[in-house]
Amino acid sequence: MSIITLMTDFGLKDGNVGVMKGVILGIAPQTKIVDLSHLVGPQNVLEAALILARSAPYFPNDTIHVVVVDPGVGTNRRPLAARIGRQRFVLPDNGLLTLLLERAEQSGQLVEVVHLDRPAYWLANVSHVFHGRDIFSPVAGHLAMGIPLAELGSPVSNPLKLTLPRPQRTTTGLLGEIIHIDHFGNIATNIRREHLGNASKLAVHLGTQRIDGLVQTFGERPAGETVALYGSTGDLIVSVVNGNAAQSLGMQVGDPVEVIVEVWNSP
Amino acid sequence: MSIITLMTDFGLKDGNVGVMKGVILGIAPQTKIVDLSHLVGPQNVLEAALILARSAPYFPNDTIHVVVVDPGVGTNRRPLAARIGRQRFVLPDNGLLTLLLERAEQSGQLVEVVHLDRPAYWLANVSHVFHGRDIFSPVAGHLAMGIPLAELGSPVSNPLKLTLPRPQRTTTGLLGEIIHIDHFGNIATNIRREHLGNASKLAVHLGTQRIDGLVQTFGERPAGETVALYGSTGDLIVSVVNGNAAQSLGMQVGDPVEVIVEVWNSP
Amino acid sequence: MSIITLMTDFGLKDGNVGVMKGVILGIAPQTKIVDLSHLVGPQNVLEAALILARSAPYFPNDTIHVVVVDPGVGTNRRPLAARIGRQRFVLPDNGLLTLLLERAEQSGQLVEVVHLDRPAYWLANVSHVFHGRDIFSPVAGHLAMGIPLAELGSPVSNPLKLTLPRPQRTTTGLLGEIIHIDHFGNIATNIRREHLGNASKLAVHLGTQRIDGLVQTFGERPAGETVALYGSTGDLIVSVVNGNAAQSLGMQVGDPVEVIVEVWNSP
Repeated sequence: MSIITLMTDFGLKDGNVGVMKGVILGIAPQTKIVDLSHLVGPQNVLEAALILARSAPYFPNDTIHVVVVDPGVGTNRRPLAARIGRQRFVLPDNGLLTLLLERAEQSGQLVEVVHLDRPAYWLANVSHVFHGRDIFSPVAGHLAMGIPLAELGSPVSNPLKLTLPRPQRTTTGLLGEIIHIDHFGNIATNIRREHLGNASKLAVHLGTQRIDGLVQTFGERPAGETVALYGSTGDLIVSVVNGNAAQSLGMQVGDPVEVIVEVWNSP
Repeated sequence: MSIITLMTDFGLKDGNVGVMKGVILGIAPQTKIVDLSHLVGPQNVLEAALILARSAPYFPNDTIHVVVVDPGVGTNRRPLAARIGRQRFVLPDNGLLTLLLERAEQSGQLVEVVHLDRPAYWLANVSHVFHGRDIFSPVAGHLAMGIPLAELGSPVSNPLKLTLPRPQRTTTGLLGEIIHIDHFGNIATNIRREHLGNASKLAVHLGTQRIDGLVQTFGERPAGETVALYGSTGDLIVSVVNGNAAQSLGMQVGDPVEVIVEVWNSP
Repeated sequence: MSIITLMTDFGLKDGNVGVMKGVILGIAPQTKIVDLSHLVGPQNVLEAALILARSAPYFPNDTIHVVVVDPGVGTNRRPLAARIGRQRFVLPDNGLLTLLLERAEQSGQLVEVVHLDRPAYWLANVSHVFHGRDIFSPVAGHLAMGIPLAELGSPVSNPLKLTLPRPQRTTTGLLGEIIHIDHFGNIATNIRREHLGNASKLAVHLGTQRIDGLVQTFGERPAGETVALYGSTGDLIVSVVNGNAAQSLGMQVGDPVEVIVEVWNSP
């Protein structure tokens, strides 16, 4: 029994996610289907790539992750299937795998990518506008039924990678930016625990706000206080305890964040 | 193992959809339950009927579709179960089946409808306000467990049908209306590919906007451009590439759409 | 095969609910996972407690209900697992069980609660901010696989209880308050059918509105009329037929509601 996760920017009101599940279950009736998110911002490939990279590692080996954030649907952008380490992926070739490919490179994980060019594994009628239903879901179903990756398409060596915003070392610390704002309004930055591993006495600046030092968790401080801490996957985040930081501080994705470090301990 | 889909106007915050699943799994523990939509507009039977008609065909044979958009709950409107072709349905008698019944008539599909009048297949206590939990879910569970339709209620020959808005032929083309606006703001009309099959040189007019010709998919044109194309189930749709057409053009369901056809090719 | 339900205040856009499911399925692959709600108001423990209490009874015996509305995550608030009657629960010790514990006391149901203090049943790395992923999901998975409650933690006799708002008897009837507003805008009060069982000729007052008598269901009255009735779990609710009562009447949770009773029949 396989697990297939679904992530799209389709929203939840129009029935399109349900239709994808119908197609999958028609091919692979025993599949467990898990929704990752269907509220990715419309056409926001980077957001989907970030959610995918931090979620996939928590799924069992051989899970198949289907991502349909696909502004290029019906054009000549390639549909792909991939194996990266112990997880599998079915998605358009638009950068969704960027972080996972980088991580695989760093850790020496096996990577195998194919261009889905075998219509035998698709629905009989393929629309120009809904490949989630017509190509990606049926391919995921066939993968779940044991069809090998190499059977589904031709090898690809150059999947598209996005240029990710990286934090810059400055004379006083690090300059990064906001990469995600979650449902609670917590502000996640592209500065990570490993960037600051040996820093002590630091202050986080964003907008006109200065936050001295890090806490370990929200509940250490009274409601309403602005705090900085590491999120559950290691990102530096800024939060208002029991409040909405993004709203209170008027911040959005892309805004700069600076960390001033007084002391870099020797590692 | 059966598949049951659920569509309601209950929203996702109050736990009511979860409760329906609990009731189903108590009767039919092996069922796969798939959410179709729970964000149908409150009491919007027509919207649910449209989503149902275009989604059901993508599900495996014998899938059971439960729809609870039910402004008449607790009144004398009848609860129904139906088989139409190879799909099954459990829902109130308020027009939700309209499009599927029409299609069945055109294609000669078998139709069987019963009035759910056997409380033995319901929860022991039936409220006046939540038949989704008390009648429709348990009936779906029993259907999934193999109880035949005829056992669940008495035959019905006159399920309620809605009067659907139809496009009108004009001297210059077709006059239709907007029937759905999706999560992306794409505008779907009641004019379909089969109405325009042999038209060439056409222009779509809605509001003050005129769109010349059709594209095949969004990505053919630059972001921000307004385009007309066929959606994934054959509806004529109007879209702003990577944008929100309904918002940009200030359109809503029910607004008129006109297609001017310069040349009707002979078929 | 076990059923696990999930309720959180995480929302649906960030992938965190999906990650919890990945963790559960990694431990207990056969589990049926049902979403109860992920749109609980941020940190709104009382709202989650109300939804839990009215939903849990509709699930099959031995269902495991995981609730992560957890403003104290990472502080010294205890993670708990519990059995109450025939249902099981995994959640932080912050009052989420209040109504279920009261009901168990009244009905003499068995209650067993443990403090989850055995890291062997958690993920290897436990963050300070996401115990839903790191503690509650793996514990639920182990429960589903048959590990007994007593194995997962040490007995606890004093789970935290919230002080619930109770309706007060007045000289003319009952004074209560609004405890929930649902997706439709229906207003639920803490006055229940059993409080009013033998009242006749009653009127409900909220804000400047007076509603005479109760109806059995919405469809008895024309669209737009304000009605009072019993909801599907016995709460007195106020509704605008096919409308949004909370919006029309400008009401919110916590606002007072008074029921004036002209005649209390002898029981």
